[in-house]
Amino acid sequence: MSGSRKRIAVDMDEVMADAVAEFLRRYERDFNEQVSDEALRGRRLWEAVRSDRHDTMLGYLQTEDFFSVLNVMPESQRVLRALQEKYEVFIATAAMEVPTSFTAKYEWLGEHFPFIPSSHIVFCGDKSIIRADYLIDDNPRQFLRFEGEGILYNAHHNVNVTGYRRVHDWLDVEKMFLG
Amino acid sequence: MSGSRKRIAVDMDEVMADAVAEFLRRYERDFNEQVSDEALRGRRLWEAVRSDRHDTMLGYLQTEDFFSVLNVMPESQRVLRALQEKYEVFIATAAMEVPTSFTAKYEWLGEHFPFIPSSHIVFCGDKSIIRADYLIDDNPRQFLRFEGEGILYNAHHNVNVTGYRRVHDWLDVEKMFLG
Repeated sequence: MSGSRKRIAVDMDEVMADAVAEFLRRYERDFNEQVSDEALRGRRLWEAVRSDRHDTMLGYLQTEDFFSVLNVMPESQRVLRALQEKYEVFIATAAMEVPTSFTAKYEWLGEHFPFIPSSHIVFCGDKSIIRADYLIDDNPRQFLRFEGEGILYNAHHNVNVTGYRRVHDWLDVEKMFLG
Repeated sequence: MSGSRKRIAVDMDEVMADAVAEFLRRYERDFNEQVSDEALRGRRLWEAVRSDRHDTMLGYLQTEDFFSVLNVMPESQRVLRALQEKYEVFIATAAMEVPTSFTAKYEWLGEHFPFIPSSHIVFCGDKSIIRADYLIDDNPRQFLRFEGEGILYNAHHNVNVTGYRRVHDWLDVEKMFLG
């Protein structure tokens, strides 16, 4: 990378924003049924529920408010602000997969992470387009052609994935990058 | 770059989409005055018009339809399709500067460039985040920290800029990349 500071790209869903919790909240509301941690372990949400419910769940993503109401992952605000002191921080989210999410995602970032300039927000699809030294992401597929180091953010669906340094929460991120 | 094919990132406004023409059309409608080519030469649009009209012009960008109605630059569709045969093509637009443009830009690409997969569309701000071998852009500021080669797409405001290979239209792009 050019410049003296290394660059960290950070995924949004499941890393900064707790999308799965909102999915499960709506699922339990609509089907009156809980999805157990055991059922989710090592699986995508879609693999853990009945396939005749997928359409309803895909519908959640299309609602205008889904990405607006997501909770912020604990400590992510404090740690990201600290990372900005030593690194160049970019947000890189695969928003192209859900085009209806653009505005909600942009506004969510402005509300919860106002210290991240919009020039450092990226809506993309294939993250191999991202030029950064590190990419913190829960989706290991995004690391396959990424040319920096992929740091796997722990999530129910990736517990069995190996080959990457793993962080379990933002305190782990802080330890890894800020000693 | 990994993989065998080189990667070309392509800017939208003034490269694929004729935004200046639409600006001038609205300006002439509202102020009953033409902006001459001479006034635009070597200048940004903002520098070529009276400053008390800037607010009105900024308002154009906020209208829902501005980015929907832009004309496609001549030959860009045919040449981009041909480039895809030999290169990885990504679209990289500084949409973060105009957040109201997200949906219109996305739909415009789908309408006029349906052969470009959404996974290869990037809405960003600072294009130094783009990992590509080439960036075709009319804005030389975007080349300063870009690590590939910046190819300057000719525009009224950049005629005096030197230091980059320049293309005047999509036939020039075709010659440069497809011989």
